[in-house]
Amino acid sequence: MNPNQTLKVVVIGSGSSYTPELVEGLLARHHELPIADLWLVDIDAGMEKAHIIADLTKRMIAKAGCDIRVHLTTNRKQALENADFVCSQFRAGRMEARLRDERIALKYRMIGQETNGLGGFSNACRTIPIALDIAKEMEVLCPNAWLLNFTNPSGMVTEALLKYSNIKTVGLCNVPVNMERGAAKMLGVEREDITMQIAGLNHLVWARQILHDGQDKIAQVTQALLDGNDQMTPKNIPPFRWDPELITNMGMVPCAYLRYYYQSRDIINKEFAASESKSNRADLVAEVEEQLLEIYRDPTLDTKPKILEQRGGAHYSEAACELMSSIFNNKRSIMHVNTRNNGAIQGLPDDCAVEVSAVITSSAIIPLNVAPFDQDTLRLIQLMKEFETLTVEAAINGDTNAAKRALILNPIVDSGSHIDEAIKETVQENIEFMPAFAHVLNR
Amino acid sequence: MNPNQTLKVVVIGSGSSYTPELVEGLLARHHELPIADLWLVDIDAGMEKAHIIADLTKRMIAKAGCDIRVHLTTNRKQALENADFVCSQFRAGRMEARLRDERIALKYRMIGQETNGLGGFSNACRTIPIALDIAKEMEVLCPNAWLLNFTNPSGMVTEALLKYSNIKTVGLCNVPVNMERGAAKMLGVEREDITMQIAGLNHLVWARQILHDGQDKIAQVTQALLDGNDQMTPKNIPPFRWDPELITNMGMVPCAYLRYYYQSRDIINKEFAASESKSNRADLVAEVEEQLLEIYRDPTLDTKPKILEQRGGAHYSEAACELMSSIFNNKRSIMHVNTRNNGAIQGLPDDCAVEVSAVITSSAIIPLNVAPFDQDTLRLIQLMKEFETLTVEAAINGDTNAAKRALILNPIVDSGSHIDEAIKETVQENIEFMPAFAHVLNR
Amino acid sequence: MNPNQTLKVVVIGSGSSYTPELVEGLLARHHELPIADLWLVDIDAGMEKAHIIADLTKRMIAKAGCDIRVHLTTNRKQALENADFVCSQFRAGRMEARLRDERIALKYRMIGQETNGLGGFSNACRTIPIALDIAKEMEVLCPNAWLLNFTNPSGMVTEALLKYSNIKTVGLCNVPVNMERGAAKMLGVEREDITMQIAGLNHLVWARQILHDGQDKIAQVTQALLDGNDQMTPKNIPPFRWDPELITNMGMVPCAYLRYYYQSRDIINKEFAASESKSNRADLVAEVEEQLLEIYRDPTLDTKPKILEQRGGAHYSEAACELMSSIFNNKRSIMHVNTRNNGAIQGLPDDCAVEVSAVITSSAIIPLNVAPFDQDTLRLIQLMKEFETLTVEAAINGDTNAAKRALILNPIVDSGSHIDEAIKETVQENIEFMPAFAHVLNR
Amino acid sequence: MNPNQTLKVVVIGSGSSYTPELVEGLLARHHELPIADLWLVDIDAGMEKAHIIADLTKRMIAKAGCDIRVHLTTNRKQALENADFVCSQFRAGRMEARLRDERIALKYRMIGQETNGLGGFSNACRTIPIALDIAKEMEVLCPNAWLLNFTNPSGMVTEALLKYSNIKTVGLCNVPVNMERGAAKMLGVEREDITMQIAGLNHLVWARQILHDGQDKIAQVTQALLDGNDQMTPKNIPPFRWDPELITNMGMVPCAYLRYYYQSRDIINKEFAASESKSNRADLVAEVEEQLLEIYRDPTLDTKPKILEQRGGAHYSEAACELMSSIFNNKRSIMHVNTRNNGAIQGLPDDCAVEVSAVITSSAIIPLNVAPFDQDTLRLIQLMKEFETLTVEAAINGDTNAAKRALILNPIVDSGSHIDEAIKETVQENIEFMPAFAHVLNR
Repeated sequence: MNPNQTLKVVVIGSGSSYTPELVEGLLARHHELPIADLWLVDIDAGMEKAHIIADLTKRMIAKAGCDIRVHLTTNRKQALENADFVCSQFRAGRMEARLRDERIALKYRMIGQETNGLGGFSNACRTIPIALDIAKEMEVLCPNAWLLNFTNPSGMVTEALLKYSNIKTVGLCNVPVNMERGAAKMLGVEREDITMQIAGLNHLVWARQILHDGQDKIAQVTQALLDGNDQMTPKNIPPFRWDPELITNMGMVPCAYLRYYYQSRDIINKEFAASESKSNRADLVAEVEEQLLEIYRDPTLDTKPKILEQRGGAHYSEAACELMSSIFNNKRSIMHVNTRNNGAIQGLPDDCAVEVSAVITSSAIIPLNVAPFDQDTLRLIQLMKEFETLTVEAAINGDTNAAKRALILNPIVDSGSHIDEAIKETVQENIEFMPAFAHVLNR
Repeated sequence: MNPNQTLKVVVIGSGSSYTPELVEGLLARHHELPIADLWLVDIDAGMEKAHIIADLTKRMIAKAGCDIRVHLTTNRKQALENADFVCSQFRAGRMEARLRDERIALKYRMIGQETNGLGGFSNACRTIPIALDIAKEMEVLCPNAWLLNFTNPSGMVTEALLKYSNIKTVGLCNVPVNMERGAAKMLGVEREDITMQIAGLNHLVWARQILHDGQDKIAQVTQALLDGNDQMTPKNIPPFRWDPELITNMGMVPCAYLRYYYQSRDIINKEFAASESKSNRADLVAEVEEQLLEIYRDPTLDTKPKILEQRGGAHYSEAACELMSSIFNNKRSIMHVNTRNNGAIQGLPDDCAVEVSAVITSSAIIPLNVAPFDQDTLRLIQLMKEFETLTVEAAINGDTNAAKRALILNPIVDSGSHIDEAIKETVQENIEFMPAFAHVLNR
Repeated sequence: MNPNQTLKVVVIGSGSSYTPELVEGLLARHHELPIADLWLVDIDAGMEKAHIIADLTKRMIAKAGCDIRVHLTTNRKQALENADFVCSQFRAGRMEARLRDERIALKYRMIGQETNGLGGFSNACRTIPIALDIAKEMEVLCPNAWLLNFTNPSGMVTEALLKYSNIKTVGLCNVPVNMERGAAKMLGVEREDITMQIAGLNHLVWARQILHDGQDKIAQVTQALLDGNDQMTPKNIPPFRWDPELITNMGMVPCAYLRYYYQSRDIINKEFAASESKSNRADLVAEVEEQLLEIYRDPTLDTKPKILEQRGGAHYSEAACELMSSIFNNKRSIMHVNTRNNGAIQGLPDDCAVEVSAVITSSAIIPLNVAPFDQDTLRLIQLMKEFETLTVEAAINGDTNAAKRALILNPIVDSGSHIDEAIKETVQENIEFMPAFAHVLNR
Repeated sequence: MNPNQTLKVVVIGSGSSYTPELVEGLLARHHELPIADLWLVDIDAGMEKAHIIADLTKRMIAKAGCDIRVHLTTNRKQALENADFVCSQFRAGRMEARLRDERIALKYRMIGQETNGLGGFSNACRTIPIALDIAKEMEVLCPNAWLLNFTNPSGMVTEALLKYSNIKTVGLCNVPVNMERGAAKMLGVEREDITMQIAGLNHLVWARQILHDGQDKIAQVTQALLDGNDQMTPKNIPPFRWDPELITNMGMVPCAYLRYYYQSRDIINKEFAASESKSNRADLVAEVEEQLLEIYRDPTLDTKPKILEQRGGAHYSEAACELMSSIFNNKRSIMHVNTRNNGAIQGLPDDCAVEVSAVITSSAIIPLNVAPFDQDTLRLIQLMKEFETLTVEAAINGDTNAAKRALILNPIVDSGSHIDEAIKETVQENIEFMPAFAHVLNR
């Protein structure tokens, strides 16, 4: 750490209502993360929200007494020039697109979850081309910068970035960090005293070890989950009780999203019910967004409001801030990231993205080795990774055959004659973001 | 082939209405397969049917002028003593059990197919312990005999036999042989002139090469399928048209059962509809059985009736007869069998059962090497093999945790809170055949 | 087999003294292999020998009363036009080059064997570029022809052809066919009644199964080897007795060349002694060549002289003739060939060449699946394959770093400071054939 | 770290002249490693040396003013009772055995290196049974203790312990720690500022990353080695210059022992010359030992003498002390250890020992993931691991066939007819330590 070095941080999709959390995290680390310039980037259509957030950001910085210049712009290239860290948290097509995904999926009797199934597929196809555009600009304007991606579907977007750009990219998700916080609470110990190792894919991850005081506490945390002391399941996943026989014999703690695989019917039925009663996830999120913006507008507000922590995405930005600091300060701390597999998980390709615990240094992210998974768990991971890999391929090339092959494998998608039409409708409604798929409309 | 050697062939589950096909095949090969004794074995409850079949068998042999002694017995050990070939074609719990499987599955909104999903699981749990009992008896009474298994679920039963007995075991299915016949017809050529190589698992198999006249005709056969000239799909699978984009780019020809994976919603909906209208598969089969028996009873009948060929199981026995002859005569012919993987399909365990084309000699079944599958196809095969392997483990040990882990992976099973109850009901209704699961009833 | 089809066969390097064996084989199969034109190709420097051989060939054909036109030419392209089969048996640099290899190797206290070690490396670097030139010409002039390579080092040349051309290529060696013949003699049975499966790499191959009369006779053949009844070891390998403990526990029969690995010191000492006493292999071969040519010159000779069978290379051409017939007649016979691995041997790359038993059809060579090797044997195979793969890379690109990495791995090469000089001297003396390495001379 | 906890540390083979280094390390960490009891264990035959060392140890402790009780005993079980850490550094058969190994190897024209080749094999066969005896005693007397093995051959001894006991075992070697120190010096930076990742097997290890100040410095360190600034090669390896082409293209830094593979002839010739001139390694070591003991005897000496640092084994004990502290204090520091592979190095069995960098916690050693090696390097690692695995098997079972299979693979061993005799002579001269091989003497 050069004592005179100052940092330029860029936030793409700065109009997100999570930005205050990010700002709070940066301010809390200002002594170790000497940010001089914070560039907030959004698109024209998002500028109203972005202005509200930028103003709050300035008030928060002023309150903290930090010397950070805030720049709000739609000129992404200007923002990227000589950046040190780029946080990607945009939403391609904004909340409207997510609502559309859920509606189309429902029409074909599937679920519109934004990182999995038909919804995840659609989201990936919209998002990946933009993410790659950003990376290509970075290769020219700030080739040594780190790209911290928390844009969903985070696993697939990170895989695309790792495969198709040279930029140092790390994918982040709040699920592992919330598992770690939750485990500490459930064990009644300090989070810092825990060494948790997670492994899997984004939203398909398990805690493999929860080490504390010379012992592995997987069994204790599992028991706490079964005893109703579940402090790991985020707001957006129904906290169905796990099958005790299954989870007790598993020897690892599943993330909340694994209910899509271990309790698929229950969760899908719940989502259908919610969709039909207009209380679907996207609608809820849109409503909360509106409330948050209202609060943010208050010119006397100069801290992150508590209510933000109650959303599913909580602690996303905290992970990002901690990662920036670990890289900048070569902390060698262990964090949970999406990175290139390179053999960390046996049985997956070297070049795919995996979500693993890793040692963070200023020059490299070194994953901890993952002890072999039980064969059945590995098969599930391999299946979903292949869904992701084919989806990335489809997204980049507009390849409908790859799309079908991806969807056939996905356990929460029904294959069949309705898929062709569902893909066509998805393309039709998203054509602005999916130019590579234009050929579908001419069939 | 010792010119003075005569053979003892045993048929277990001889009361099956397919037996006349087997007898027809044996008679057609009598010049190369010198059978002196044909032992027909069934259980007390099946003796009425077994007698009808045995009588028809005798009439067929007499008509053919062959010198084969027919023995009908319930004493399996007596039958097995010094046997050369044992054909296993029994149905544990008879047709009633299959009807129960379909009913229970339907109750939990799943399908009761006899080789896959909850029905396949139930069938495996009933059947595998009996199959292993037979093999254990063979290890004592006829340790050098070959066991030809066509008892369903053939893939899982064969895997159990390969793993837990020393008897030389080959699993058979009529699907590949019907693909070969169909391909020849679709190409308008003689079946003998084709060299077809298949690979996969039982009911999850693809034609990888269809060689004829110096060329691979996969593309032609695929086109014929799309052109409506499908001569491969058996009666028990709805002949839905394949997705042209998917199948044309696949470079191999899927077996009809792959519709459970590529067109799952269509086929499942069809099965639900059939179940609800009482036209489910098991009912249909029971009805046809009754008709066949009526015909078989006719004392003037001394050949296999043509109607038998119209059932899904056609050519099962022909494959068995050809296999016996290939082994006995060291023909080195290429047949399609379930055998130990041993590396034939990369990415599967060495000791699991796979369905592949193999060179048949009198001392060994040598699989043809399988060129690597595309990654997505491999993932599907690996997933289903893991379902099979866990099901075998569950069947042998009464292990409900293995059962759940198996069912979670199966793409045509919904996971969730209903599974516990569905397993319990399955055990309750089949407890006679699933003593290892008795502990479930005490929970 | 089209009844009116006639064949054009090309022999490259026709001046080899083995050619009469090839001609004998073709004539013996004339009823099933309707050759109309036999093109004999050699280079100017070899024309004297080539003429002698061509004349003998014509006399042999006349004696057999076959209607085959013989063409001797130095115009390779003319010969290749519309060919059906191309037999490659040339020796780059002729016998002089082999002598040089042995001399240089000896100088650096290594052995100059023509398929392994420094000699094999040198031979590969001379030969592979020419082999690829031939294949490139074939891609234009006879793209559907089959290329049968028996040019040494056969394994590496075949690997280069499989990787860098589209021509259907099969590599042949006389070692497996001699093992099969030998095994039959040692067992006292007919060769046709044996089903032998071999697997490994060229000159690093084992008989995995020797099936006869319903049993595997590996143990009997092993015992015969130990009892002094070794009918498998060719003239050019000293018939040292195998270690009884090692070979008896191996469960497979090693080819004679495995003495380079299992008895390296003995064989290397023997070769050094021979080299120093001027009775080295290349000198011996040159002498025998001279004698053979003298015999061939005899205008009354119209059959293959018996003496040819006593050389190490015996039955090479027979394998070639049988392969042509199997392909042309779609015999589905099992032959031992060098072909693309594609998973046949687990633990080797898909795209490398392996030596395995395969079913020969008119459109494809389908290897028999190879049951997994014991781990230590696999490690040896993997090591030598990596030597081969790096040597091929070095040969094509003139890459001295790849060359060193190859030689470091080779168990019969000592690594060290002498290697640089040995490579330089090899290049210097062979620069005509190794233009890609010219840069070495300027160092 | 329980503030009241005190530790019991046991040193087996305490008469080693390295013990003062270990004591120095423990004293330097006394503030973080509260040792109350230090048990020094040796055998009767070693008591004279052991007493000298124990007395020096007491003087060193007194000088440091620490409150550690020192116990010298031949009663290993008493020492192990309730131990917290057990350091294993014994030499089976003492220096005499090493001298014998070198002499026998030389007789058969091989080298007698103590961790590789015939010498390593012999050493493993003597040592592993004793190491397992110690572990078995620990399973009863101190089942929660950590076993720190630095007894050579460290890789094979650690593999045996990991496979055949339940004790938490870590293998240590001074090679990686010296590479790290050397790299820091060569780069002119502080060792603490470097993050070095090593991977491979014991004495067959490479630095894969040398991270400093946001960059990987592999190229700089490589260049320093070539520029004659080699600060990594220990005294016992001749510092031959590496081949510049090879090492520059390697992308990693080889440990000094890799000269046995990359420069085998040079190093072997050097060892032969040394052996013949009586300046072999074992003799040198014996001489130095004598000198050291003379120094240790001095009753005024109360610190580790500087001269000890000049031996090949320097910093062995330092690694051990740092490891104890990292475990006790849950430091999560990165150290270089021999531990269970578990997928860290792709292409090796899960259950074998590998030498890798790992995060050290109080409950688990978590290896850093190793990015895939180049194929040729992997082949070398796999080969040597198979040598090790077969040697361990031979050592435990007295299996001469496994021994031969091991030695055939080892690149610095010549296979051949002399091996049988060499094994027999090895057994004869070491029969006291190799009772499992007694059968060899009766042949």
